Amino acid sequence: MPEQVPGSRQEPAARRESFGSRLGAAMASRGPLCVGIDPHPALLASWGLDDDAEGLRRFSLTVLEAVASLAAAVKPQVALYERHGSAGMAVLEEVLATARDEAVLSIADAKRGDIGSTMAAYADAWLRDESPLAADSVTLSPYLGFESLRPALDLAAETGRGVFVLALTSNPEGASVQHVGGKDSVARRISAAAAAENSRYEGNLGSVGLVVGATVGSALKDLDLDLAAVRGPILAPGLGAQGATPAGLRATFGDAYPLVLGTSSREILSAGPQIRGLREAALRTLDGLRGE
Amino acid sequence: MPEQVPGSRQEPAARRESFGSRLGAAMASRGPLCVGIDPHPALLASWGLDDDAEGLRRFSLTVLEAVASLAAAVKPQVALYERHGSAGMAVLEEVLATARDEAVLSIADAKRGDIGSTMAAYADAWLRDESPLAADSVTLSPYLGFESLRPALDLAAETGRGVFVLALTSNPEGASVQHVGGKDSVARRISAAAAAENSRYEGNLGSVGLVVGATVGSALKDLDLDLAAVRGPILAPGLGAQGATPAGLRATFGDAYPLVLGTSSREILSAGPQIRGLREAALRTLDGLRGE
Repeated sequence: MPEQVPGSRQEPAARRESFGSRLGAAMASRGPLCVGIDPHPALLASWGLDDDAEGLRRFSLTVLEAVASLAAAVKPQVALYERHGSAGMAVLEEVLATARDEAVLSIADAKRGDIGSTMAAYADAWLRDESPLAADSVTLSPYLGFESLRPALDLAAETGRGVFVLALTSNPEGASVQHVGGKDSVARRISAAAAAENSRYEGNLGSVGLVVGATVGSALKDLDLDLAAVRGPILAPGLGAQGATPAGLRATFGDAYPLVLGTSSREILSAGPQIRGLREAALRTLDGLRGE
Repeated sequence: MPEQVPGSRQEPAARRESFGSRLGAAMASRGPLCVGIDPHPALLASWGLDDDAEGLRRFSLTVLEAVASLAAAVKPQVALYERHGSAGMAVLEEVLATARDEAVLSIADAKRGDIGSTMAAYADAWLRDESPLAADSVTLSPYLGFESLRPALDLAAETGRGVFVLALTSNPEGASVQHVGGKDSVARRISAAAAAENSRYEGNLGSVGLVVGATVGSALKDLDLDLAAVRGPILAPGLGAQGATPAGLRATFGDAYPLVLGTSSREILSAGPQIRGLREAALRTLDGLRGE
Protein backbone atom coordinates (compact mmCIF):
# COMPACT_ATOMS: atom_id res chain seq x y z
CA MET A 1 0.00 0.00 0.00
CA PRO A 2 1.55 3.36 -1.00
CA GLU A 3 2.25 5.70 1.90
CA GLN A 4 0.75 9.14 1.86
CA VAL A 5 3.18 11.81 0.70
CA PRO A 6 3.55 14.39 3.50
CA GLY A 7 2.23 17.76 2.48
CA SER A 8 0.50 16.38 -0.59
CA ARG A 9 -3.03 17.57 -1.31
CA GLN A 10 -4.39 14.06 -1.47
CA GLU A 11 -8.00 13.60 -0.39
CA PRO A 12 -8.81 10.76 2.04
CA ALA A 13 -10.05 8.66 -0.88
CA ALA A 14 -6.58 8.82 -2.38
CA ARG A 15 -4.71 7.56 0.69
CA ARG A 16 -4.54 4.18 -0.91
CA GLU A 17 -5.44 2.85 -4.27
CA SER A 18 -9.21 2.97 -4.49
CA PHE A 19 -11.42 -0.06 -4.90
CA GLY A 20 -12.63 1.23 -8.28
CA SER A 21 -9.07 1.52 -9.52
CA ARG A 22 -8.15 -1.96 -8.28
CA LEU A 23 -11.30 -3.50 -9.74
CA GLY A 24 -10.78 -1.69 -13.05
CA ALA A 25 -7.25 -3.12 -13.29
CA ALA A 26 -8.49 -6.63 -12.48
CA MET A 27 -11.29 -6.38 -15.07
CA ALA A 28 -8.81 -5.16 -17.69
CA SER A 29 -6.24 -7.88 -17.07
CA ARG A 30 -8.52 -10.84 -16.27
CA GLY A 31 -11.81 -9.93 -17.91
CA PRO A 32 -15.08 -8.78 -16.35
CA LEU A 33 -16.12 -11.92 -14.47
CA CYS A 34 -17.28 -12.17 -10.88
CA VAL A 35 -17.87 -15.68 -9.56
CA GLY A 36 -20.58 -16.00 -6.93
CA ILE A 37 -19.77 -18.26 -3.98
CA ASP A 38 -23.25 -19.51 -3.11
CA PRO A 39 -23.22 -22.60 -0.89
CA HIS A 40 -26.92 -23.33 -1.36
CA PRO A 41 -28.13 -26.53 0.34
CA ALA A 42 -28.88 -28.13 -3.05
CA LEU A 43 -25.39 -27.35 -4.37
CA LEU A 44 -23.75 -28.70 -1.21
CA ALA A 45 -25.73 -31.91 -1.67
CA SER A 46 -24.74 -32.23 -5.33
CA TRP A 47 -21.08 -31.80 -4.31
CA GLY A 48 -21.50 -34.56 -1.71
CA LEU A 49 -21.05 -32.12 1.19
CA ASP A 50 -23.08 -31.76 4.37
CA ASP A 51 -25.22 -28.67 4.95
CA ASP A 52 -23.11 -27.53 7.89
CA ALA A 53 -20.19 -25.23 8.62
CA GLU A 54 -17.60 -27.74 7.42
CA GLY A 55 -19.56 -28.25 4.19
CA LEU A 56 -19.68 -24.47 3.64
CA ARG A 57 -15.97 -24.27 4.27
CA ARG A 58 -14.95 -27.01 1.87
CA PHE A 59 -17.30 -25.68 -0.80
CA SER A 60 -16.08 -22.08 -0.51
CA LEU A 61 -12.36 -22.86 -0.37
CA THR A 62 -12.70 -25.17 -3.37
CA VAL A 63 -14.34 -22.42 -5.41
CA LEU A 64 -11.60 -20.01 -4.37
CA GLU A 65 -8.88 -22.47 -5.30
CA ALA A 66 -10.46 -22.90 -8.73
CA VAL A 67 -11.15 -19.30 -9.68
CA ALA A 68 -9.02 -16.95 -7.52
CA SER A 69 -6.41 -16.61 -10.25
CA LEU A 70 -8.80 -16.01 -13.13
CA ALA A 71 -11.84 -14.04 -11.90
CA ALA A 72 -11.75 -10.28 -11.34
CA ALA A 73 -13.74 -10.79 -8.15
CA VAL A 74 -15.57 -13.36 -6.06
CA LYS A 75 -18.89 -12.71 -4.37
CA PRO A 76 -19.75 -14.80 -1.31
CA GLN A 77 -23.51 -14.72 -0.62
CA VAL A 78 -23.70 -13.74 3.06
CA ALA A 79 -27.21 -15.15 3.65
CA LEU A 80 -25.93 -18.66 3.04
CA TYR A 81 -23.31 -18.32 5.78
CA GLU A 82 -25.69 -16.50 8.16
CA ARG A 83 -28.05 -19.50 7.86
CA HIS A 84 -25.53 -21.37 9.99
CA GLY A 85 -25.27 -18.64 12.61
CA SER A 86 -21.95 -17.68 14.12
CA ALA A 87 -20.32 -20.91 12.89
CA GLY A 88 -21.25 -19.95 9.33
CA MET A 89 -20.00 -16.40 9.83
CA ALA A 90 -16.66 -17.79 11.08
CA VAL A 91 -16.39 -19.67 7.77
CA LEU A 92 -17.15 -16.45 5.90
CA GLU A 93 -14.31 -14.74 7.78
CA GLU A 94 -11.97 -17.48 6.59
CA VAL A 95 -13.26 -17.18 3.01
CA LEU A 96 -12.72 -13.41 2.96
CA ALA A 97 -9.22 -13.77 4.44
CA THR A 98 -8.34 -16.46 1.89
CA ALA A 99 -9.56 -14.26 -0.97
CA ARG A 100 -7.23 -11.53 0.33
CA ASP A 101 -4.31 -13.97 0.56
CA GLU A 102 -4.97 -15.22 -2.96
CA ALA A 103 -5.22 -11.66 -4.31
CA VAL A 104 -8.72 -11.83 -5.70
CA LEU A 105 -11.11 -8.97 -4.90
CA SER A 106 -14.09 -9.82 -2.69
CA ILE A 107 -17.66 -8.54 -2.79
CA ALA A 108 -19.58 -9.48 0.35
CA ASP A 109 -23.14 -9.81 -0.93
CA ALA A 110 -24.87 -8.68 2.26
CA LYS A 111 -27.43 -6.10 1.04
CA ARG A 112 -27.16 -4.21 4.32
CA GLY A 113 -28.83 -0.90 5.01
CA ASP A 114 -29.77 1.18 8.04
CA ILE A 115 -29.39 4.75 9.29
CA GLY A 116 -27.01 6.79 11.41
CA SER A 117 -24.86 5.02 13.97
CA THR A 118 -26.39 1.65 13.04
CA MET A 119 -25.37 2.11 9.41
CA ALA A 120 -21.94 3.08 10.71
CA ALA A 121 -21.83 -0.27 12.51
CA TYR A 122 -22.54 -2.15 9.27
CA ALA A 123 -19.84 -0.09 7.55
CA ASP A 124 -17.49 -1.04 10.37
CA ALA A 125 -18.34 -4.72 9.98
CA TRP A 126 -17.54 -4.96 6.28
CA LEU A 127 -15.25 -2.03 5.40
CA ARG A 128 -12.93 -1.45 8.35
CA ASP A 129 -9.36 -2.77 8.19
CA GLU A 130 -9.40 -4.58 11.54
CA SER A 131 -12.83 -6.17 11.16
CA PRO A 132 -12.90 -9.97 10.99
CA LEU A 133 -15.46 -9.63 8.16
CA ALA A 134 -13.51 -7.00 6.19
CA ALA A 135 -14.12 -7.39 2.45
CA ASP A 136 -12.97 -5.34 -0.52
CA SER A 137 -16.57 -4.26 -1.03
CA VAL A 138 -20.10 -4.90 0.16
CA THR A 139 -23.56 -4.72 -1.40
CA LEU A 140 -26.03 -2.27 0.20
CA SER A 141 -29.79 -1.75 0.09
CA PRO A 142 -31.11 1.83 -0.14
CA TYR A 143 -34.74 1.59 1.07
CA LEU A 144 -33.89 4.19 3.73
CA GLY A 145 -32.52 6.53 1.05
CA PHE A 146 -29.20 6.54 -0.79
CA GLU A 147 -27.88 9.16 1.61
CA SER A 148 -28.59 6.91 4.61
CA LEU A 149 -25.66 4.84 3.34
CA ARG A 150 -23.27 7.77 3.96
CA PRO A 151 -21.22 6.08 6.73
CA ALA A 152 -20.38 3.22 4.34
CA LEU A 153 -19.66 5.54 1.41
CA ASP A 154 -17.22 7.54 3.52
CA LEU A 155 -15.53 4.61 5.25
CA ALA A 156 -15.09 2.85 1.88
CA ALA A 157 -13.39 5.96 0.48
CA GLU A 158 -11.12 6.13 3.50
CA THR A 159 -10.05 2.49 3.49
CA GLY A 160 -9.78 1.94 -0.27
CA ARG A 161 -12.88 -0.22 -0.34
CA GLY A 162 -16.09 -0.09 -2.35
CA VAL A 163 -19.85 -0.53 -2.26
CA PHE A 164 -22.47 -1.79 -4.71
CA VAL A 165 -25.89 -0.22 -4.11
CA LEU A 166 -29.02 -2.05 -5.23
CA ALA A 167 -30.58 -0.03 -8.06
CA LEU A 168 -32.60 -2.03 -10.55
CA THR A 169 -33.20 -5.75 -10.27
CA SER A 170 -34.79 -8.21 -12.64
CA ASN A 171 -37.10 -10.05 -10.22
CA PRO A 172 -40.66 -9.17 -11.28
CA GLU A 173 -41.67 -7.83 -7.84
CA GLY A 174 -38.75 -5.34 -7.82
CA ALA A 175 -40.66 -2.98 -10.10
CA SER A 176 -43.21 -2.23 -7.36
CA VAL A 177 -40.53 -0.19 -5.59
CA GLN A 178 -37.77 0.53 -8.13
CA HIS A 179 -39.93 1.65 -11.08
CA VAL A 180 -42.17 3.91 -9.00
CA GLY A 181 -42.06 7.64 -9.72
CA GLY A 182 -42.33 7.96 -13.51
CA LYS A 183 -39.52 10.03 -15.00
CA ASP A 184 -37.94 10.44 -11.59
CA SER A 185 -38.14 6.80 -10.58
CA VAL A 186 -36.55 5.34 -7.47
CA ALA A 187 -34.01 3.41 -9.57
CA ARG A 188 -33.08 6.56 -11.50
CA ARG A 189 -32.57 8.48 -8.25
CA ILE A 190 -30.24 5.79 -6.91
CA SER A 191 -28.31 5.74 -10.17
CA ALA A 192 -27.95 9.54 -10.22
CA ALA A 193 -26.82 9.59 -6.59
CA ALA A 194 -24.12 7.00 -7.34
CA ALA A 195 -22.93 9.07 -10.31
CA ALA A 196 -22.64 12.16 -8.11
CA GLU A 197 -20.79 10.19 -5.44
CA ASN A 198 -18.22 8.91 -7.93
CA SER A 199 -17.11 12.45 -8.71
CA ARG A 200 -14.87 12.14 -5.63
CA TYR A 201 -12.87 9.45 -7.43
CA GLU A 202 -10.33 10.04 -10.17
CA GLY A 203 -9.63 7.55 -12.98
CA ASN A 204 -12.00 5.52 -15.08
CA LEU A 205 -13.90 3.75 -12.36
CA GLY A 206 -15.20 5.11 -9.07
CA SER A 207 -15.69 2.94 -6.00
CA VAL A 208 -19.47 3.33 -5.79
CA GLY A 209 -21.03 0.62 -7.90
CA LEU A 210 -24.58 -0.42 -8.55
CA VAL A 211 -26.35 -3.75 -8.64
CA VAL A 212 -28.36 -4.02 -11.85
CA GLY A 213 -29.85 -7.36 -12.87
CA ALA A 214 -28.40 -8.90 -16.03
CA THR A 215 -31.93 -9.61 -17.29
CA VAL A 216 -33.62 -6.23 -16.70
CA GLY A 217 -34.37 -6.07 -20.44
CA SER A 218 -35.73 -2.74 -21.62
CA ALA A 219 -36.14 -1.29 -18.10
CA LEU A 220 -32.91 0.70 -18.37
CA LYS A 221 -34.28 2.53 -21.41
CA ASP A 222 -37.83 2.71 -20.11
CA LEU A 223 -36.63 4.37 -16.92
CA ASP A 224 -33.99 6.45 -18.72
CA LEU A 225 -31.10 5.28 -16.54
CA ASP A 226 -27.75 6.61 -17.75
CA LEU A 227 -25.45 3.94 -16.36
CA ALA A 228 -22.43 5.09 -18.37
CA ALA A 229 -22.61 8.34 -16.41
CA VAL A 230 -22.38 6.43 -13.12
CA ARG A 231 -18.71 5.78 -13.83
CA GLY A 232 -18.75 2.99 -11.24
CA PRO A 233 -18.79 -0.78 -11.59
CA ILE A 234 -22.11 -2.42 -12.45
CA LEU A 235 -22.54 -5.75 -10.70
CA ALA A 236 -24.87 -7.70 -12.99
CA PRO A 237 -26.01 -10.99 -11.46
CA GLY A 238 -27.90 -13.44 -13.62
CA LEU A 239 -25.42 -14.84 -16.12
CA GLY A 240 -25.91 -18.48 -16.97
CA ALA A 241 -28.47 -20.40 -14.95
CA GLN A 242 -30.64 -17.30 -14.51
CA GLY A 243 -30.89 -16.82 -18.24
CA ALA A 244 -28.55 -13.99 -19.26
CA THR A 245 -25.90 -14.47 -21.94
CA PRO A 246 -22.80 -12.34 -22.55
CA ALA A 247 -24.36 -11.15 -25.83
CA GLY A 248 -27.54 -10.27 -23.95
CA LEU A 249 -25.50 -8.26 -21.43
CA ARG A 250 -23.97 -6.22 -24.25
CA ALA A 251 -27.38 -5.53 -25.76
CA THR A 252 -28.90 -4.59 -22.39
CA PHE A 253 -26.11 -2.33 -21.13
CA GLY A 254 -25.01 -0.73 -24.42
CA ASP A 255 -22.41 1.99 -23.90
CA ALA A 256 -22.23 1.13 -20.18
CA TYR A 257 -21.00 -2.39 -20.96
CA PRO A 258 -17.35 -1.53 -20.13
CA LEU A 259 -18.49 -0.94 -16.54
CA VAL A 260 -20.29 -4.27 -16.25
CA LEU A 261 -18.97 -7.03 -14.02
CA GLY A 262 -20.86 -10.10 -15.16
CA THR A 263 -21.73 -12.39 -12.26
CA SER A 264 -22.32 -16.06 -12.55
CA SER A 265 -22.98 -18.42 -9.68
CA ARG A 266 -25.01 -21.55 -10.28
CA GLU A 267 -23.80 -22.35 -13.80
CA ILE A 268 -20.16 -22.31 -12.71
CA LEU A 269 -20.74 -23.85 -9.27
CA SER A 270 -22.72 -26.77 -10.63
CA ALA A 271 -19.63 -27.73 -12.65
CA GLY A 272 -17.91 -28.64 -9.34
CA PRO A 273 -16.69 -30.14 -7.12
CA GLN A 274 -13.70 -30.87 -9.36
CA ILE A 275 -11.33 -27.92 -9.68
CA ARG A 276 -10.91 -28.59 -13.38
CA GLY A 277 -14.65 -28.49 -14.08
CA LEU A 278 -15.08 -25.24 -12.14
CA ARG A 279 -12.16 -23.65 -13.92
CA GLU A 280 -13.38 -24.67 -17.35
CA ALA A 281 -16.88 -23.34 -16.66
CA ALA A 282 -15.44 -20.04 -15.41
CA LEU A 283 -13.17 -19.74 -18.47
CA ARG A 284 -16.08 -20.42 -20.82
CA THR A 285 -18.08 -17.60 -19.20
CA LEU A 286 -15.06 -15.33 -19.29
CA ASP A 287 -14.52 -15.98 -23.00
CA GLY A 288 -18.10 -14.99 -23.66
CA LEU A 289 -17.77 -11.79 -21.61
CA ARG A 290 -14.61 -10.83 -23.47
CA GLY A 291 -16.29 -11.50 -26.79
CA GLU A 292 -13.82 -14.22 -27.68
CA MET B 1 -46.62 -26.59 21.26
CA PRO B 2 -50.10 -27.94 20.42
CA GLU B 3 -50.09 -30.83 17.97
CA GLN B 4 -52.09 -30.51 14.81
CA VAL B 5 -55.39 -32.32 15.00
CA PRO B 6 -55.48 -34.94 12.24
CA GLY B 7 -58.09 -34.16 9.66
CA SER B 8 -58.67 -30.64 10.97
CA ARG B 9 -58.82 -27.83 8.47
CA GLN B 10 -56.14 -25.82 10.22
CA GLU B 11 -53.98 -23.67 7.98
CA PRO B 12 -50.20 -23.82 8.51
CA ALA B 13 -50.36 -20.44 10.28
CA ALA B 14 -52.60 -21.94 12.92
CA ARG B 15 -50.32 -24.83 13.83
CA ARG B 16 -49.04 -22.87 16.78
CA GLU B 17 -50.02 -19.62 18.37
CA SER B 18 -49.02 -16.92 15.92
CA PHE B 19 -46.48 -14.22 16.66
CA GLY B 20 -49.15 -11.55 16.31
CA SER B 21 -51.30 -13.28 18.88
CA ARG B 22 -48.40 -13.70 21.29
CA LEU B 23 -47.27 -10.11 20.85
CA GLY B 24 -50.82 -8.82 21.25
CA ALA B 25 -51.13 -10.67 24.56
CA ALA B 26 -47.79 -9.31 25.76
CA MET B 27 -48.73 -5.74 24.79
CA ALA B 28 -52.06 -6.09 26.60
CA SER B 29 -50.61 -7.47 29.81
CA ARG B 30 -47.32 -5.55 29.99
CA GLY B 31 -47.94 -2.48 27.88
CA PRO B 32 -46.67 -1.58 24.40
CA LEU B 33 -42.95 -1.18 25.09
CA CYS B 34 -40.07 -2.66 23.13
CA VAL B 35 -36.61 -2.08 24.57
CA GLY B 36 -33.80 -1.84 22.04
CA ILE B 37 -30.60 -3.69 22.92
CA ASP B 38 -28.05 -1.49 21.17
CA PRO B 39 -24.50 -2.06 22.36
CA HIS B 40 -23.10 1.02 20.63
CA PRO B 41 -19.41 1.66 21.31
CA ALA B 42 -20.24 4.90 23.17
CA LEU B 43 -22.77 3.12 25.42
CA LEU B 44 -20.33 0.31 26.16
CA ALA B 45 -17.77 2.91 27.18
CA SER B 46 -20.23 4.74 29.42
CA TRP B 47 -21.05 1.42 31.11
CA GLY B 48 -17.34 0.78 31.68
CA LEU B 49 -17.28 -2.14 29.25
CA ASP B 50 -14.81 -2.94 26.50
CA ASP B 51 -15.87 -2.76 22.86
CA ASP B 52 -15.45 -6.49 22.34
CA ALA B 53 -17.52 -9.67 22.41
CA GLU B 54 -17.39 -9.92 26.21
CA GLY B 55 -18.49 -6.29 26.52
CA LEU B 56 -21.42 -6.96 24.16
CA ARG B 57 -22.34 -10.00 26.18
CA ARG B 58 -22.34 -8.31 29.58
CA PHE B 59 -24.22 -5.31 28.19
CA SER B 60 -26.90 -7.41 26.49
CA LEU B 61 -27.48 -9.85 29.36
CA THR B 62 -27.73 -6.95 31.81
CA VAL B 63 -30.41 -5.27 29.71
CA LEU B 64 -32.29 -8.57 29.49
CA GLU B 65 -32.07 -9.11 33.24
CA ALA B 66 -33.48 -5.64 33.82
CA VAL B 67 -36.36 -5.59 31.34
CA ALA B 68 -37.28 -9.16 30.35
CA SER B 69 -40.12 -9.27 32.86
CA LEU B 70 -41.61 -5.89 32.01
CA ALA B 71 -41.20 -5.19 28.28
CA ALA B 72 -43.48 -6.73 25.64
CA ALA B 73 -40.41 -7.32 23.46
CA VAL B 74 -36.70 -6.67 23.18
CA LYS B 75 -34.97 -5.68 19.95
CA PRO B 76 -31.28 -6.49 19.61
CA GLN B 77 -29.67 -4.37 16.88
CA VAL B 78 -27.90 -6.96 14.71
CA ALA B 79 -25.42 -4.51 13.14
CA LEU B 80 -23.80 -3.96 16.52
CA TYR B 81 -23.11 -7.68 16.94
CA GLU B 82 -22.05 -8.14 13.30
CA ARG B 83 -19.41 -5.42 13.87
CA HIS B 84 -17.56 -8.02 15.91
CA GLY B 85 -17.83 -10.73 13.28
CA SER B 86 -18.59 -14.31 14.20
CA ALA B 87 -17.70 -13.67 17.86
CA GLY B 88 -20.35 -10.95 17.99
CA MET B 89 -22.88 -13.20 16.26
CA ALA B 90 -22.21 -15.91 18.85
CA VAL B 91 -23.13 -13.37 21.54
CA LEU B 92 -26.32 -12.57 19.65
CA GLU B 93 -27.20 -16.27 19.62
CA GLU B 94 -26.84 -16.30 23.41
CA VAL B 95 -28.93 -13.13 23.74
CA LEU B 96 -31.76 -14.57 21.62
CA ALA B 97 -31.68 -17.86 23.55
CA THR B 98 -31.74 -16.00 26.86
CA ALA B 99 -34.73 -13.91 25.73
CA ARG B 100 -36.52 -17.18 24.92
CA ASP B 101 -35.65 -18.64 28.34
CA GLU B 102 -36.84 -15.49 30.09
CA ALA B 103 -40.09 -15.47 28.09
CA VAL B 104 -39.74 -12.08 26.47
CA LEU B 105 -40.42 -11.80 22.73
CA SER B 106 -37.45 -10.95 20.52
CA ILE B 107 -37.25 -8.81 17.41
CA ALA B 108 -33.93 -9.28 15.59
CA ASP B 109 -33.38 -5.87 13.99
CA ALA B 110 -31.54 -7.13 10.92
CA LYS B 111 -33.29 -5.31 8.03
CA ARG B 112 -32.54 -8.21 5.70
CA GLY B 113 -33.85 -8.48 2.16
CA ASP B 114 -33.02 -10.46 -0.98
CA ILE B 115 -34.81 -12.59 -3.57
CA GLY B 116 -35.60 -16.24 -4.21
CA SER B 117 -33.44 -18.88 -2.60
CA THR B 118 -31.22 -16.23 -1.02
CA MET B 119 -34.21 -14.67 0.73
CA ALA B 120 -35.15 -18.18 1.81
CA ALA B 121 -31.71 -18.46 3.41
CA TYR B 122 -32.29 -15.26 5.42
CA ALA B 123 -35.68 -16.61 6.46
CA ASP B 124 -33.96 -19.81 7.54
CA ALA B 125 -31.39 -17.88 9.56
CA TRP B 126 -33.89 -15.92 11.66
CA LEU B 127 -37.22 -17.77 11.55
CA ARG B 128 -36.47 -21.50 11.52
CA ASP B 129 -36.80 -23.47 14.77
CA GLU B 130 -33.39 -25.12 14.67
CA SER B 131 -31.42 -22.04 13.62
CA PRO B 132 -28.88 -20.76 16.16
CA LEU B 133 -30.12 -17.23 15.37
CA ALA B 134 -33.84 -18.05 15.64
CA ALA B 135 -35.79 -15.04 16.94
CA ASP B 136 -39.50 -14.49 17.46
CA SER B 137 -39.41 -11.98 14.61
CA VAL B 138 -37.04 -10.13 12.30
CA THR B 139 -37.06 -6.77 10.54
CA LEU B 140 -36.93 -6.85 6.72
CA SER B 141 -36.14 -4.33 3.99
CA PRO B 142 -38.34 -4.32 0.84
CA TYR B 143 -36.22 -2.54 -1.79
CA LEU B 144 -36.56 -5.64 -3.98
CA GLY B 145 -40.35 -5.51 -3.62
CA PHE B 146 -42.63 -6.61 -0.77
CA GLU B 147 -43.31 -9.87 -2.58
CA SER B 148 -39.59 -10.69 -2.69
CA LEU B 149 -39.93 -11.28 1.06
CA ARG B 150 -42.33 -14.19 0.43
CA PRO B 151 -40.03 -16.94 1.81
CA ALA B 152 -39.86 -15.10 5.16
CA LEU B 153 -43.61 -14.33 5.19
CA ASP B 154 -44.40 -18.01 4.66
CA LEU B 155 -41.81 -19.45 7.03
CA ALA B 156 -42.92 -17.02 9.75
CA ALA B 157 -46.52 -18.18 9.34
CA GLU B 158 -45.41 -21.79 9.53
CA THR B 159 -43.25 -21.44 12.65
CA GLY B 160 -45.39 -19.00 14.61
CA ARG B 161 -42.95 -16.18 14.08
CA GLY B 162 -43.29 -12.66 12.68
CA VAL B 163 -41.71 -10.00 10.50
CA PHE B 164 -41.58 -6.20 10.56
CA VAL B 165 -41.17 -4.71 7.10
CA LEU B 166 -39.62 -1.26 6.70
CA ALA B 167 -42.33 1.09 5.46
CA LEU B 168 -41.91 4.73 6.42
CA THR B 169 -38.96 6.05 8.39
CA SER B 170 -38.28 9.43 9.89
CA ASN B 171 -34.70 9.96 8.68
CA PRO B 172 -34.85 12.87 6.20
CA GLU B 173 -33.23 10.92 3.35
CA GLY B 174 -35.86 8.14 3.59
CA ALA B 175 -38.36 10.27 1.67
CA SER B 176 -36.28 10.00 -1.53
CA VAL B 177 -37.41 6.39 -1.81
CA GLN B 178 -40.44 5.93 0.47
CA HIS B 179 -42.43 9.04 -0.54
CA VAL B 180 -41.92 8.56 -4.28
CA GLY B 181 -44.99 7.86 -6.41
CA GLY B 182 -47.57 10.44 -5.34
CA LYS B 183 -50.88 8.88 -4.32
CA ASP B 184 -49.48 5.43 -4.87
CA SER B 185 -46.25 5.97 -2.97
CA VAL B 186 -43.73 3.25 -2.19
CA ALA B 187 -44.57 3.45 1.55
CA ARG B 188 -48.29 3.15 0.80
CA ARG B 189 -47.70 0.08 -1.38
CA ILE B 190 -45.74 -1.61 1.39
CA SER B 191 -48.43 -0.79 3.92
CA ALA B 192 -51.19 -2.13 1.66
CA ALA B 193 -49.26 -5.31 0.98
CA ALA B 194 -48.82 -5.92 4.72
CA ALA B 195 -52.55 -5.39 5.25
CA ALA B 196 -53.37 -7.96 2.56
CA GLU B 197 -50.88 -10.39 4.03
CA ASN B 198 -52.44 -10.17 7.49
CA SER B 199 -55.75 -11.47 6.17
CA ARG B 200 -54.25 -14.95 6.63
CA TYR B 201 -54.21 -14.36 10.40
CA GLU B 202 -57.20 -14.47 12.70
CA GLY B 203 -57.55 -12.39 15.85
CA ASN B 204 -56.72 -8.76 16.49
CA LEU B 205 -53.12 -8.71 15.39
CA GLY B 206 -51.51 -10.37 12.39
CA SER B 207 -47.87 -11.42 12.32
CA VAL B 208 -46.78 -9.08 9.54
CA GLY B 209 -45.77 -5.82 11.14
CA LEU B 210 -44.33 -2.61 9.76
CA VAL B 211 -41.51 -0.35 10.86
CA VAL B 212 -42.75 3.23 10.96
CA GLY B 213 -40.62 5.92 12.61
CA ALA B 214 -42.08 7.47 15.76
CA THR B 215 -41.26 10.93 14.44
CA VAL B 216 -42.66 10.73 10.89
CA GLY B 217 -44.94 13.66 11.73
CA SER B 218 -47.57 14.37 9.10
CA ALA B 219 -46.16 11.94 6.53
CA LEU B 220 -48.77 9.29 7.41
CA LYS B 221 -51.54 11.71 6.49
CA ASP B 222 -49.68 13.24 3.56
CA LEU B 223 -49.15 9.82 2.03
CA ASP B 224 -52.61 8.58 3.04
CA LEU B 225 -51.33 5.49 4.87
CA ASP B 226 -54.11 3.58 6.60
CA LEU B 227 -52.12 1.86 9.32
CA ALA B 228 -55.18 0.75 11.29
CA ALA B 229 -56.11 -1.38 8.26
CA VAL B 230 -52.73 -3.13 8.41
CA ARG B 231 -53.90 -5.02 11.51
CA GLY B 232 -50.30 -5.88 12.31
CA PRO B 233 -47.92 -4.50 14.91
CA ILE B 234 -46.27 -1.16 14.17
CA LEU B 235 -42.71 -1.03 15.44
CA ALA B 236 -42.08 2.65 16.08
CA PRO B 237 -38.46 3.42 16.92
CA GLY B 238 -37.54 6.87 18.13
CA LEU B 239 -38.99 7.22 21.63
CA GLY B 240 -36.86 9.18 24.05
CA ALA B 241 -33.41 10.20 22.90
CA GLN B 242 -34.55 10.49 19.28
CA GLY B 243 -37.24 12.99 20.23
CA ALA B 244 -40.59 11.19 20.26
CA THR B 245 -42.85 11.27 23.32
CA PRO B 246 -45.72 8.90 24.14
CA ALA B 247 -48.15 11.79 23.61
CA GLY B 248 -46.52 12.49 20.26
CA LEU B 249 -46.94 8.84 19.29
CA ARG B 250 -50.67 9.02 20.02
CA ALA B 251 -51.02 12.17 17.93
CA THR B 252 -49.01 10.72 15.04
CA PHE B 253 -50.65 7.31 14.86
CA GLY B 254 -54.24 8.25 15.78
CA ASP B 255 -56.62 5.30 15.46
CA ALA B 256 -53.68 2.97 14.71
CA TYR B 257 -52.15 3.68 18.14
CA PRO B 258 -53.39 0.35 19.61
CA LEU B 259 -51.10 -1.40 17.09
CA VAL B 260 -48.04 0.63 18.03
CA LEU B 261 -45.12 -0.96 19.85
CA GLY B 262 -43.11 2.03 21.07
CA THR B 263 -39.39 1.38 20.93
CA SER B 264 -36.85 3.08 23.10
CA SER B 265 -33.15 2.34 23.12
CA ARG B 266 -30.72 5.04 24.11
CA GLU B 267 -32.83 6.77 26.76
CA ILE B 268 -33.33 3.53 28.67
CA LEU B 269 -29.86 2.10 28.00
CA SER B 270 -28.08 5.23 29.15
CA ALA B 271 -29.72 4.73 32.57
CA GLY B 272 -27.50 1.62 33.00
CA PRO B 273 -25.42 -0.24 33.92
CA GLN B 274 -27.34 -0.62 37.20
CA ILE B 275 -30.35 -2.91 36.91
CA ARG B 276 -32.41 -0.58 39.04
CA GLY B 277 -31.71 2.44 36.84
CA LEU B 278 -32.56 0.50 33.67
CA ARG B 279 -35.77 -0.82 35.18
CA GLU B 280 -36.89 2.60 36.38
CA ALA B 281 -36.22 4.16 32.98
CA ALA B 282 -38.18 1.37 31.24
CA LEU B 283 -41.08 1.72 33.68
CA ARG B 284 -41.20 5.49 33.15
CA THR B 285 -41.44 4.98 29.38
CA LEU B 286 -44.05 2.28 29.87
CA ASP B 287 -46.18 4.55 32.07
CA GLY B 288 -46.12 7.16 29.34
CA LEU B 289 -47.12 4.64 26.68
CA ARG B 290 -50.00 3.40 28.81
CA GLY B 291 -51.13 6.95 29.44
CA GLU B 292 -50.63 6.63 33.17
